[in-house]
Amino acid sequence: MIRLYDFDKVKPEEILNRDIRAEADVEATVDAIIADVRARGDAALIEYAAKFDHAELQSVQVTQQEIDEAFAELDAQDPEFITTLKMAAENIRHFHEQQLHKNFILTDKPGVVLGQKYTPIQRAGVYVPGGTAAYPSTVLMDVIPAKVAGVKQIVMTTPAGPGGKVNPGILAAAVIAGIDKIFKSGGAQAVAALAYGTESVPAVDKIVGPGNIYVATAKRKVFGKVGIDMIAGPSEILVLADGSCNPAWVAADMLSQAEHDKLATPVLVTDSWELAKAVQAELEVQIPQLARAAIARASVDTNGKIIVTDDMNKAIEAVNIIAPEHLEICVDDPFAVLGRIENAGSIFLGKNVPEALGDYFAGPNHTLPTSGTARFSSPLGVDDFVKKSSFIYYTREALGQVEKRIANFAEHEGLHAHAKSVTIRFEDQ
Amino acid sequence: MIRLYDFDKVKPEEILNRDIRAEADVEATVDAIIADVRARGDAALIEYAAKFDHAELQSVQVTQQEIDEAFAELDAQDPEFITTLKMAAENIRHFHEQQLHKNFILTDKPGVVLGQKYTPIQRAGVYVPGGTAAYPSTVLMDVIPAKVAGVKQIVMTTPAGPGGKVNPGILAAAVIAGIDKIFKSGGAQAVAALAYGTESVPAVDKIVGPGNIYVATAKRKVFGKVGIDMIAGPSEILVLADGSCNPAWVAADMLSQAEHDKLATPVLVTDSWELAKAVQAELEVQIPQLARAAIARASVDTNGKIIVTDDMNKAIEAVNIIAPEHLEICVDDPFAVLGRIENAGSIFLGKNVPEALGDYFAGPNHTLPTSGTARFSSPLGVDDFVKKSSFIYYTREALGQVEKRIANFAEHEGLHAHAKSVTIRFEDQ
Repeated sequence: MIRLYDFDKVKPEEILNRDIRAEADVEATVDAIIADVRARGDAALIEYAAKFDHAELQSVQVTQQEIDEAFAELDAQDPEFITTLKMAAENIRHFHEQQLHKNFILTDKPGVVLGQKYTPIQRAGVYVPGGTAAYPSTVLMDVIPAKVAGVKQIVMTTPAGPGGKVNPGILAAAVIAGIDKIFKSGGAQAVAALAYGTESVPAVDKIVGPGNIYVATAKRKVFGKVGIDMIAGPSEILVLADGSCNPAWVAADMLSQAEHDKLATPVLVTDSWELAKAVQAELEVQIPQLARAAIARASVDTNGKIIVTDDMNKAIEAVNIIAPEHLEICVDDPFAVLGRIENAGSIFLGKNVPEALGDYFAGPNHTLPTSGTARFSSPLGVDDFVKKSSFIYYTREALGQVEKRIANFAEHEGLHAHAKSVTIRFEDQ
Repeated sequence: MIRLYDFDKVKPEEILNRDIRAEADVEATVDAIIADVRARGDAALIEYAAKFDHAELQSVQVTQQEIDEAFAELDAQDPEFITTLKMAAENIRHFHEQQLHKNFILTDKPGVVLGQKYTPIQRAGVYVPGGTAAYPSTVLMDVIPAKVAGVKQIVMTTPAGPGGKVNPGILAAAVIAGIDKIFKSGGAQAVAALAYGTESVPAVDKIVGPGNIYVATAKRKVFGKVGIDMIAGPSEILVLADGSCNPAWVAADMLSQAEHDKLATPVLVTDSWELAKAVQAELEVQIPQLARAAIARASVDTNGKIIVTDDMNKAIEAVNIIAPEHLEICVDDPFAVLGRIENAGSIFLGKNVPEALGDYFAGPNHTLPTSGTARFSSPLGVDDFVKKSSFIYYTREALGQVEKRIANFAEHEGLHAHAKSVTIRFEDQ
């Protein structure tokens, strides 16, 4: 059964223990795999696919024929699903297009031009897990922002299953999102291939996408050589609810996270002991009805929390301390609360907005900062696939007016060659 | 003497070897220091200040009296310098104000509101090195973007020298930039204090600022608990010049980086063998005249490169492969080249714009992506001190229209509780 806490009696920092670290043996394994892929390229990828994924591959790239077969298979199974994928993709594209920034230029001083321009990253790599964590929704969420940003080449790697086959939903989502190339490789070896390139896989400038501890460790190791997105921890939902909420809906929303993973964290913060107890009871009713009841049970009992506060002000304070990945604000007037939320990845406003709406369909990204990192980081988006360059232009006259200031500053820092690089331009030649 | 390369005969990837890693013994030392600061707080900071900085401290926070004394000392020494600091700060503030983004909201579908809002990080910590690398300019560049972003509390740590005194230029720059509190602590212990807090030092949400290998390693270790800015490698300048350039100016600009550090990398890319040889000779003339001649000599001889290409198109290609931290475009019409630069931190346009102008004064940030990371990362700026939250609002009717799509998607991913969280809202109660 989920545990109840009185907010006044616990330190909020103690409520969520979210410290995840790689074991030393994972580090050594990942180091060896990266070195092997750098040395042997595709041959290493094919060997690891056989060893770890039980997939016998002739080549690592997915062919057009395989893509056509995936669409045919999905269409035969459930023709609506391809339409659902396309509608979701369109919503995601529309939302992310609003994230594009404009270059700017300042010309307000005589002879001076200052500015900043955006350039898309040239090549991006998207990692997609296989097996039961193969989520077409994540493919859409990772590829579409790169596409909107204008990345020239977007490639994906995902492990093949036995027989060398890739999940058809993954392939369809990738094509709908606008992928350029798809490779059959998973784990640390896929990350190594994206970072350093092989005969088939182009070396990319940035790698995004979730994965297990081997994938996460490999991403940390190649960081610097390439960019990476966040290292995602277990999924979290925090429902902020007052006494007016339907406890069955709140419980269902908490369970939508709990079913992901035993480590997932479902939290309710409320000012109502009555709602707290009703949700606690509802969870017990609904868990046994779930297909993934065992996972949800472990998540709720181990990590689940209901925190009761004196009032909604305290509840909002708790939210900002916890800095949840997903925040549902289940009150009648959620827009009144929106401005007071300082730390949260994605915010679901009102009683009719279950997190699943955002996971799949509404448009905002579902790749979000976990483990309290919403205090300083943001959802995946177009910004992750562009970079800025600043620029400075001065005329000779404009430089002449500040020559002595710059030399003064440089001399104070003991950097005489800095000073000289300005003054030399005004010496007699 | 600086080495010359024919662009057609070398792999550009081989030209710049920029792989920097912490030694294992640094890791162990840093782990021990972090654990000690977490356990003992201020007492540990005071002990390390005595041990590493030879500074006997009574308390770790800089007092108002110390700040007043710093201004008085600077004013007595060189009254112009405070004015220079204030003018530079104003330029930096003006430029960074242009980086502020607007929230957005989409209301184009009936019953649906989607949006994204920016929130400043609540607390930021700025690390400032001491000793000969104590640069007031870096204080301005690190603090002002946080201030413009709206960070509520900005604190700085920097090591005190013998006698417990902090460099007066550092203190003045911090106050002019708008710092809230200043602490006397350097090295890994300062990073630990910022990440975990002590009796005096508040725990912050993000740590920025350069430092030695101990500081960089500590930043890597606390990343996740807090955000960090980039881990900066040695400084780099790439001068892209055609045959019309003054070789003495080009050499002076290259030396303005070379004087920083033996590991600094000054590079010239040109389509003119004549300029290449003239710059090579000019470097030999100017190096002996420098105050920091030994450092510049080591930088130029070990890391310096002149790369000669067949034409300017190839030269621009080389620039984009190298992805330099600082790029000077020394040609008569630099704006014609600007749009073709894909990878560079900060771009200096034309013959009258030595890098030092941007290091100190013009306004754009001087904390820039090194080691080729301009392929995927950006100058420090306001974006580093804000984060985004997305939000979703649907009416009951709007949710009803997509209920089946979301359930369809969730069922395809085998996540039945996700589906249930939507459908439960339309069941008979």
